Amino acid sequence: MGYSDKHKLKTTNLQLPIRLLLGPGPSNLHPRVNQQLISSMVGYTDASYYKVMDETMELMRYLFQTDNHFTIPISGAGTAAMETCVSNLVEPGDKVVCLVSGFFSDRIYQMAVRYGANILKVDKQWGQWFGLEEIESALVQHKPSLLTLVFGETSTGVKQQMEGVGELCKKYNCLLMVDCVAALGGVPVFVDDWKIDACYTGTQKCLSGPPGISPITFSNAACHKIATRKTPVANWYLDCNLLGGYWCPEFNLADGTISKEEKSSIPRRYHHTTPANLLYSLREALVLLVEEGLDNVWKRHQDAAILLYAGLESLGLKPFVPQLNEQSEKGGRLFSLTTVIIPEGVDGKMVMKYLLDNFNIEIAGGIGAFAGKVWRIGLMGQNANPSNIKLLISSLSDALKVNGFNN
Amino acid sequence: MGYSDKHKLKTTNLQLPIRLLLGPGPSNLHPRVNQQLISSMVGYTDASYYKVMDETMELMRYLFQTDNHFTIPISGAGTAAMETCVSNLVEPGDKVVCLVSGFFSDRIYQMAVRYGANILKVDKQWGQWFGLEEIESALVQHKPSLLTLVFGETSTGVKQQMEGVGELCKKYNCLLMVDCVAALGGVPVFVDDWKIDACYTGTQKCLSGPPGISPITFSNAACHKIATRKTPVANWYLDCNLLGGYWCPEFNLADGTISKEEKSSIPRRYHHTTPANLLYSLREALVLLVEEGLDNVWKRHQDAAILLYAGLESLGLKPFVPQLNEQSEKGGRLFSLTTVIIPEGVDGKMVMKYLLDNFNIEIAGGIGAFAGKVWRIGLMGQNANPSNIKLLISSLSDALKVNGFNN
Repeated sequence: MGYSDKHKLKTTNLQLPIRLLLGPGPSNLHPRVNQQLISSMVGYTDASYYKVMDETMELMRYLFQTDNHFTIPISGAGTAAMETCVSNLVEPGDKVVCLVSGFFSDRIYQMAVRYGANILKVDKQWGQWFGLEEIESALVQHKPSLLTLVFGETSTGVKQQMEGVGELCKKYNCLLMVDCVAALGGVPVFVDDWKIDACYTGTQKCLSGPPGISPITFSNAACHKIATRKTPVANWYLDCNLLGGYWCPEFNLADGTISKEEKSSIPRRYHHTTPANLLYSLREALVLLVEEGLDNVWKRHQDAAILLYAGLESLGLKPFVPQLNEQSEKGGRLFSLTTVIIPEGVDGKMVMKYLLDNFNIEIAGGIGAFAGKVWRIGLMGQNANPSNIKLLISSLSDALKVNGFNN
Repeated sequence: MGYSDKHKLKTTNLQLPIRLLLGPGPSNLHPRVNQQLISSMVGYTDASYYKVMDETMELMRYLFQTDNHFTIPISGAGTAAMETCVSNLVEPGDKVVCLVSGFFSDRIYQMAVRYGANILKVDKQWGQWFGLEEIESALVQHKPSLLTLVFGETSTGVKQQMEGVGELCKKYNCLLMVDCVAALGGVPVFVDDWKIDACYTGTQKCLSGPPGISPITFSNAACHKIATRKTPVANWYLDCNLLGGYWCPEFNLADGTISKEEKSSIPRRYHHTTPANLLYSLREALVLLVEEGLDNVWKRHQDAAILLYAGLESLGLKPFVPQLNEQSEKGGRLFSLTTVIIPEGVDGKMVMKYLLDNFNIEIAGGIGAFAGKVWRIGLMGQNANPSNIKLLISSLSDALKVNGFNN
């Protein structure tokens, strides 16, 4: 009985390699974003903290290109943001259409199952996206209150066509939930123009931020649904009725009105201690976006992708997604994340290991249906620059030769 | 349509005051813990990252004083760790006894409601703890599969008696879930000796770490329940069957066996991107515990509390909890968090404001049933030292005089 030394592990100083992270995320932190992690800790009711919260909310509206008042960061991974959408927007028995053609769109489906939805799952081969006709057909057939899709699928490198999708959902009185984890802050996303009702992302991809805090935005229609549910949200930590009381107590989720009182005079209701260090960092990542300008950021990601495609071609490698489509609302290759076909006879894992061991470069392999078939190369956030591509293509050339591939 | 500058907020550099955080958490980060936040980012499949994960798990076993193999950090606030316990251990219709005498024990109850438990809520006036007779009576009456309690209640400053509680739960074949958020790493907790099945804490209290990652441990009996549920865990992000596949794939939750294969050769199943920076920090906080020794850490917290009580007495102030009990398994004052009765005629908020404005010291007011009645003073982690107490008592003396209290 009593105190025990049994698990008193002897350790050495933390030893971590310096990697260039060109996989599907995390990407490297921008130095300024990294530095904000160690800004001084203040209490969760400190006026200075409220200011950080408010500024971050407004900066996220810029990121999402939305006027949505309910735009907050979730205290968890991108998956927690995904579950925030599902758990808040789905009541048991609610009809949901899940468009599934990759690892993460399937994850949304799995979550909707757990929250008791009545689901029409529209499956499509991995690597494809959905056209308007099949979306309309699902809406007509199932009459859902929610349709879910992934805009930038990290597992396949596919960008879903968005043109007309929001209009269709409005026509059939259905909320539209869109995963933008691998895309937001790198590829154009227009939450309001595209009539998206629920959208989220992670910080460790195109925002070059630390993982563990995840921006989310809800339209007023989505907020109305959340505030007028017949059943409580079946998830306490992610219940937006409660989260709103801390982040935006001036906002009435049910009717979309904003109190005319000074925000500083409206009491905030404590919910949980938010990850302050990560919030400081997220704010800085968004400040960087403002300084560069989102339009320039998008162009930089596109330029980087085009350069990568040329480099791959010079090595005799092919992107998995054939369609290169520069128009933001069309389907095609996702500029921030490229899937590359592993040529026949090449051991994909050995190539990855060679890059990691010799050059400290991380790229990733495929997952799920794509395991062993593709590499995944991410050019996200600050990592989307010509130097990284030069280095990658040159190193990849070595790795391929060593592994017996003669292009 | 298209790109908009509307929410392109102009900001200045992040301006945060330097606070001495003597409230109920967050507490100040230890400089070494803070510094680890900016260690270099690596991928979530990097061998170096797996090493950090494994070391942190072992160090947490020391923290919890347990042999439990399933000892992992949850990627969220302490509240997410609480919900991990409830969502994994409760199936719809399961009988649960919730002992409620404070803000956070009530939160557990609210969660159990959302997960469809058949609950006997045993209410007690805030500021009291539960005796063995009333616990046994609830076990006999309700025949629960789970009993929930808070060991160190942040809202009241009360430490729940633990002597005999675990034995009672075993006798009636009931799992025991214990919240140690305000206590662990500051006050003795013995998960194995006390026969606790589910235990969790936050990092931003006695561990002097950043909020957003939360240690949790499950006994093999709890793991068995989780692995043999009739229904899936109604929470995808916190499902320990899935989390185990990433953190400890060598462990069989159903039967408690550990694979004889080398851990490094067992594939880990990706679940979500964990908050690497916070994990680095948590590891360092635990290394500090090892260096000082948990037994010394506990003594330092106790010494600090005794010094605080003397200081309060010198000012004519009284702790809310009358019983000072040094034995760890007995009920009484929680050394890490002291509730202090606000004397009649004193405006508690003005005193707090005076301390904050003049000395950058944060203490907190009461919440819930204790709003306006008490201050809450935390001496947690590195903040539990004599200098802070000297400074606090001296500053509090000024604040009381200015606010018309003559002791």
